[in-house]
Amino acid sequence: MAGDAQATQRRLLDAARAEFSAFGIAGARVDRIAAAAQSNKAQIYHYFGSKDALFDAVFGEVVASTLREAPLDAADLPGYAGSLFDRYEQDPDISRLATWYRLERADAGRLLQAVVSSYQGKIAAITRAQKAGQLPTTFRPEDLLALVVHTAALWTALNPEFSDVVRKHGRAHRRQVVVDAVRALLL
Amino acid sequence: MAGDAQATQRRLLDAARAEFSAFGIAGARVDRIAAAAQSNKAQIYHYFGSKDALFDAVFGEVVASTLREAPLDAADLPGYAGSLFDRYEQDPDISRLATWYRLERADAGRLLQAVVSSYQGKIAAITRAQKAGQLPTTFRPEDLLALVVHTAALWTALNPEFSDVVRKHGRAHRRQVVVDAVRALLL
Repeated sequence: MAGDAQATQRRLLDAARAEFSAFGIAGARVDRIAAAAQSNKAQIYHYFGSKDALFDAVFGEVVASTLREAPLDAADLPGYAGSLFDRYEQDPDISRLATWYRLERADAGRLLQAVVSSYQGKIAAITRAQKAGQLPTTFRPEDLLALVVHTAALWTALNPEFSDVVRKHGRAHRRQVVVDAVRALLL
Repeated sequence: MAGDAQATQRRLLDAARAEFSAFGIAGARVDRIAAAAQSNKAQIYHYFGSKDALFDAVFGEVVASTLREAPLDAADLPGYAGSLFDRYEQDPDISRLATWYRLERADAGRLLQAVVSSYQGKIAAITRAQKAGQLPTTFRPEDLLALVVHTAALWTALNPEFSDVVRKHGRAHRRQVVVDAVRALLL
């Protein structure tokens, strides 16, 4: 029984991820998610409580896996930006979900705790590396982190007039632009 | 009568801008737009044809005014980034509308002609400036433009965990971070 419940929740989370990535929160349809997961709306509300809470569950998983697979190395911010780039390339849902989250959830003032503590840990690591002379102090820690994270998302958050460029450039080239740009910020 | 029609269209565009900025395209409600503009749904469809076309009309105005007020100067890309930053600060709708456009319209492959020609003109200007030795050739023209435009949107497109930083930093400081980052790219 527990296994069945877990399997159902897994199918619901996977279906919700695809639906939210494509349509955002307002645009997502709970009945489409239920159908894609071979489940029903009642189960969604039973397991997750609401469409917003289902989105938070999906996004929380994405945040956790990104923290795991692209941990911050304050002594190698170009490498960190490269790892984030790799994550975004491997899984285009990530940046779409993060953008919907910004547009539709965070303006309402509710931040996931995992996001806040990860942010604070990164600021602390950059501050330490600056004090240790491993990083230049041209930018304040929070400004540097903002620039690095933002630059890593260069190709996934560009205006659509760049879509031909994104398609034409190979992935290795696009990665190099991100890494080189972060390197330039540290000179 | 022509004046009335123009005034109605203006009210509809203004109401649509606020609605699309807040809720995106899927989330926008045509009846809310009509009510806010003291008009009705029939007039929206009469003047604009569809909700998507109404969005394009709103976004087309935003693109045109940004081109007018923040023209590209290839010999001064840090200054260009600063002007774009100023636009985004003055009018927070701009980056929200651009993001909805990216998420909800451009993936469907339809780009506004004004966007495409503006993009091509900017690439040509940067290419000329690189050939004239006014700009370094570290980055290809399209990569450099991507980095500059993306960096200008740093504070408006950041993940929400940065929202405290954005609030605490004064506008002049945030502008300086953008300008300094673009300057670093050109070293």
